[in-house]
Amino acid sequence: MNRAQKELAEGILFTDQYQLTMAQLYYRMGFQDKLVQFDHFFREYPDYGTHKAGFCINAGMEWLIHWMQQVHFGKKEIEYLSSQKNLMGQQLFQNDFLDWLYKNGSFEDLNIYAIPEGRVVHPNEPLTVVQGPLAMAQILETSLLNHLNYQILIATKAARMHEIGRGQVLLEFGLRRGHSFGANAGARAALIGGADSTSNVGVSAVLGTSPKGTHAHSMVQFFIALGMSELDAFRAYAEVYPDDCLLLVDTINTLESGVPNAIRVFEELRRKGHQPMGIRLDSGDLAYLSIQAANMLDKAGFENVSIVLSNNLDELVIWQILTQIEEEAPRYGVDSDKLIRRLVYGVGTRLITSWGEPALGGVYKLVAVYDENQWKPAIKISESLDKTPNPGNKKIWRIYDKRGKATADLICLNDEDPQTKSKLCLRHPTDHTKYRMLEDKDISKIEPLLELVWEKGKIPHPLPNLEEMRHRRIKDIEVLDSGVRRLMNPHIYHVSLSQKLWNLKQELIEKSQPGIENNSNK
Amino acid sequence: MNRAQKELAEGILFTDQYQLTMAQLYYRMGFQDKLVQFDHFFREYPDYGTHKAGFCINAGMEWLIHWMQQVHFGKKEIEYLSSQKNLMGQQLFQNDFLDWLYKNGSFEDLNIYAIPEGRVVHPNEPLTVVQGPLAMAQILETSLLNHLNYQILIATKAARMHEIGRGQVLLEFGLRRGHSFGANAGARAALIGGADSTSNVGVSAVLGTSPKGTHAHSMVQFFIALGMSELDAFRAYAEVYPDDCLLLVDTINTLESGVPNAIRVFEELRRKGHQPMGIRLDSGDLAYLSIQAANMLDKAGFENVSIVLSNNLDELVIWQILTQIEEEAPRYGVDSDKLIRRLVYGVGTRLITSWGEPALGGVYKLVAVYDENQWKPAIKISESLDKTPNPGNKKIWRIYDKRGKATADLICLNDEDPQTKSKLCLRHPTDHTKYRMLEDKDISKIEPLLELVWEKGKIPHPLPNLEEMRHRRIKDIEVLDSGVRRLMNPHIYHVSLSQKLWNLKQELIEKSQPGIENNSNK
Repeated sequence: MNRAQKELAEGILFTDQYQLTMAQLYYRMGFQDKLVQFDHFFREYPDYGTHKAGFCINAGMEWLIHWMQQVHFGKKEIEYLSSQKNLMGQQLFQNDFLDWLYKNGSFEDLNIYAIPEGRVVHPNEPLTVVQGPLAMAQILETSLLNHLNYQILIATKAARMHEIGRGQVLLEFGLRRGHSFGANAGARAALIGGADSTSNVGVSAVLGTSPKGTHAHSMVQFFIALGMSELDAFRAYAEVYPDDCLLLVDTINTLESGVPNAIRVFEELRRKGHQPMGIRLDSGDLAYLSIQAANMLDKAGFENVSIVLSNNLDELVIWQILTQIEEEAPRYGVDSDKLIRRLVYGVGTRLITSWGEPALGGVYKLVAVYDENQWKPAIKISESLDKTPNPGNKKIWRIYDKRGKATADLICLNDEDPQTKSKLCLRHPTDHTKYRMLEDKDISKIEPLLELVWEKGKIPHPLPNLEEMRHRRIKDIEVLDSGVRRLMNPHIYHVSLSQKLWNLKQELIEKSQPGIENNSNK
Repeated sequence: MNRAQKELAEGILFTDQYQLTMAQLYYRMGFQDKLVQFDHFFREYPDYGTHKAGFCINAGMEWLIHWMQQVHFGKKEIEYLSSQKNLMGQQLFQNDFLDWLYKNGSFEDLNIYAIPEGRVVHPNEPLTVVQGPLAMAQILETSLLNHLNYQILIATKAARMHEIGRGQVLLEFGLRRGHSFGANAGARAALIGGADSTSNVGVSAVLGTSPKGTHAHSMVQFFIALGMSELDAFRAYAEVYPDDCLLLVDTINTLESGVPNAIRVFEELRRKGHQPMGIRLDSGDLAYLSIQAANMLDKAGFENVSIVLSNNLDELVIWQILTQIEEEAPRYGVDSDKLIRRLVYGVGTRLITSWGEPALGGVYKLVAVYDENQWKPAIKISESLDKTPNPGNKKIWRIYDKRGKATADLICLNDEDPQTKSKLCLRHPTDHTKYRMLEDKDISKIEPLLELVWEKGKIPHPLPNLEEMRHRRIKDIEVLDSGVRRLMNPHIYHVSLSQKLWNLKQELIEKSQPGIENNSNK
C-alpha cells in the first residue's frame, strides 16, 4: 500500500460493508437521523483454555476517539463507494445517498459515554455507550469493536502477568509476533494493563515512555563469524553501554560460556566504576538456569544485577518458574525470595496475541431507539437468555462493601440512582431465583462508572494519561476480593441488574415470545 | 494518536529498541556496513491445539516492501532518539551515530530474495533472504517479522478453511475481532490464502475486490423497536436491494420467523422479476438449521438461493457441519450434496486471529557474513539441533516426482545446482541416519523458489497481483500429496539439506562445540 491507499484503508472505510448497505437503507427509509443507543460490552471473560480471567482491564478509547476525529467520508471514499456495483452491474450506492454521506459522514453528531481506560470491568455491563443518529452510529460499530476489543484483551492479559509476577518489572517484547500494525495498540494496552515498558520504539515515542532493549543473539553470532568470541561481543557492548550493560547469555551455552563471560565483563566494568545492569536468559529451563546464574553472580559479588527471563512467557509459565525457584533454589544455597526480587520478565508472543484466547467477544448492540419523545428499549432475543442484551438506556454503578472492597457492579435504568436508596435489590442477570439485598450499612460507597468522553465531535474532558490509567488499574485491582484476583478458577464477581431493569427485560422478552405471530404483518 | 504520531509509530521506529542499540554498537566498532545475510524462516507449522498444518501459504511481502520504500530515519525520528537517556541520565544515542543514521538510515542498500506470495512453503527453509549492510539489515528484523509472520499465518488458516469447505465461497468477516489495524493485513492474507471476498471495505478498495455484506441483527431490531416487524425489515431490504437480497434470519427465531418471512419476501421479489440471493444463519445448530431452511426454501421453489453460515466457524466447525449434513439431510429428504453446494461460509474471529495458534514463530537469523572477500557462514548453537539454523548463503529448490507431485524442498548452498546432477542426496535436516536418494528418472522438475524482490531500494520485477497469487496457491496445493493436505495429522512434507550443506552445518557445530574454551579470550 502506498500512503494514499493506507489512508483509505485505515480511514472511515475501516468498516464492514454491511454497515454501509444498512446506512443506505436507513437513508432510503428516512431513518438515518433517528436517535439510537448502542451498548458495547463483552459477554464472557477471556478464557485461555485452561484458565479464565476473573476481571478485565478497560482500554482503547483514546485511540478510538482520535481515529474518530480524523476520519470522514471524503471525496476518495465517496468515489470508491460510487464505483461499487450490485450483482446486476448497477451502481450499488445511489448518488443521493452518497451526497448525503459526503455532507453528513462524520462522527460529529454522536455522544459517547465510557468506563475510563485502566479500570477493572466485567461481562455484560456497557463499557461504552454510543448515542446518536442511526446511520453514523451504525457505521461506527466495526471500528469501535476493533479498537476496543483488542486493547481490553491485551490490557487484561498484561494485568494477569503482572499479578502473578509479584509486581516485578514486566517488559513487552511482542512487536515481531503481533498482528501487523495492531502490535502498536497491543503495546499501548500492555502498558496500561501491567507492562512497565515495551521494546516497541515507535509506541514509546508516542506515549513518552522509555523503550527497553539491549542486544540479540545475532550480535554475538556476528562477532563469532568474524573470528572473535562471545566475550569480545560482551566487551564491545560494555564499552558502548557501560552504565546500561545487560547481556544475553544463551547464544552458546548459558552456564558454561554466557554467564562466566558476562561475569568477567561485569568485573571489568566494576573496576572502571560502573554498575552492571544484568543478564538475560532466553532458552532452556529458565527456573533452573536463573538459580544457577544467581549463584554464580552472587559468588562474584553481583547480587544486585537483574536476571531478565524471556522465551514464550505467560502467566502460567511465570507461575511455574516461581514455584520451581521456591522449591529448587534452597537446594543450591540460593535465597528464593532474593532471587525472585531480582527477576524481570520479558513477554512477547503470548502477551501481544493473548495466547489461548486471541479475541475478546465484545459486541455492539442496539438497546434503545428515541421515538415519540422517549427512549424505547430494543431487544434481541437470542437462542439463550445469557446472550440477550440488557435493553434500554442504562447506567452502571460499582458498589463497595464496608471493607472498601468492590462487591458488585449494578446495572440500572438511566433514571435510577442507587445512591439515594436505603436498600438495594441486586438481581442475578439470568437466574430468576437469585438475588441479593444490600442495605446502607453494608455499603461504603456507590460509584458511577460511565463518563462522557465524546460530545458531538469534541472531547469534553481531558483524557487520562498513561500514569493515571495505570494508577486507576492498580487501585481497582487492589479493591477486588482476592478470590476474584486468583489466576485459576476465580470467584465470579457479581454483575447485577436493578429490579426495574430486570422487570423491563422480562417484559420485552415476553412481548416478543410469540415469535412469528407477533411479527407477521397481516 | 494524531496523524504525526501515527506516522512516527508506524514509520522506521516500528522496531525493537535493541535493533537500535545494536546498530550504534556496530557503528561504534566500524561494522555498520559489513555485508551480512539474514534468513527469515519458521521452524514449525502452526499447531492449532488439536491439529497441526501440513503446509503454509507465503504472504506479506508486498506490504513489507511498500513500507520499506516509505520509511527512513528522518528529522523526527532522530530528534526522538537523541532525547533517549541511559540509566545515568546521559544521551543514549551519540550524535555521530545519529548523524550517520540520518544520512544512511534507509533500506536502500539491501537486497531481498523471497519465495513469492501465494506459494506453499514449509518449515526451516528460508522464505526471505536479506543481504546488505549489517546495521540496516539488523534494524529491518522486527518489522519484517511483524509483516510476514502474521500474513503467512492467516493465509495458511484461510487455505485450510477453503480446503475443508470443498471450494465453496469463503467470506472473511473478522475486522471487528482483528488486532487493531492489523486486521487489514489479515484480510489481505485471507484473500491470498483462500477467502473469496472480505467484508472489510477499506482493504477491498485498495485491492480492487468487491466487499461483501448485507445487514445485521440491529436492522431487524430497529424496525421492531419502532413497532414494526422482522417482515417489515426484510421488505425494506428487498426494496432497496432487490437484486442483492440476502437476509439474516435469526434475530427472532430462525425456523419459525426468519426463514418463513424471508420466503415471503423472496416470493414478492420473484413476482417482480428479481432473483433473491440467499439467507444467512448466524446462531444455533448451523447444520440442522441449514437442512431445515433448505427444505423450506426448496418447497417454496428457491432451490438456488445461497445459505450463508457464520458464527465462530473454523476448519473444524466447517468439517463438523458438513459431516452432520451428510448424515442428517437424507432423513429430512434433503439432498446433502446439493445443500453443500449452496453453502457459503462467513468466517470471522477464528480466521483473523488464527484461533488456536495466533502467532507464527517466524525468526530472522544471521546465517552469513561477507568477510575477506567471501561469505563466511554464521551459526547459533541452540539447545537443540532442530533449532539450529542452516548456515550460509543458500538456495531452495522444489523437487517434483514423476507424477508431477511436489515431493521435497531441497536447501542447497548457493553454488550448487541440483538441476545439473544426475543423482540427488536429500539429507534429513536433523536425523543423521536418514537420507533419500533421488535419480533423474524419479524427477519431473526441479524449480528454484527464491526470487529477487528488492534490489537496492527498487522493486526489480512487477509483484504478482492478487489473482496471480491465488492462482499460484491453487496450483501449489494441487501438487501436494493428499496426505500432506489432510486436515488432521498430515504427512510430513520433506524439507531436506543437500549433502554439501549438511557437511557444512556439522562442521560448524563441531567447531563451536568446545564452547567456553573456544570462546574464551586469553
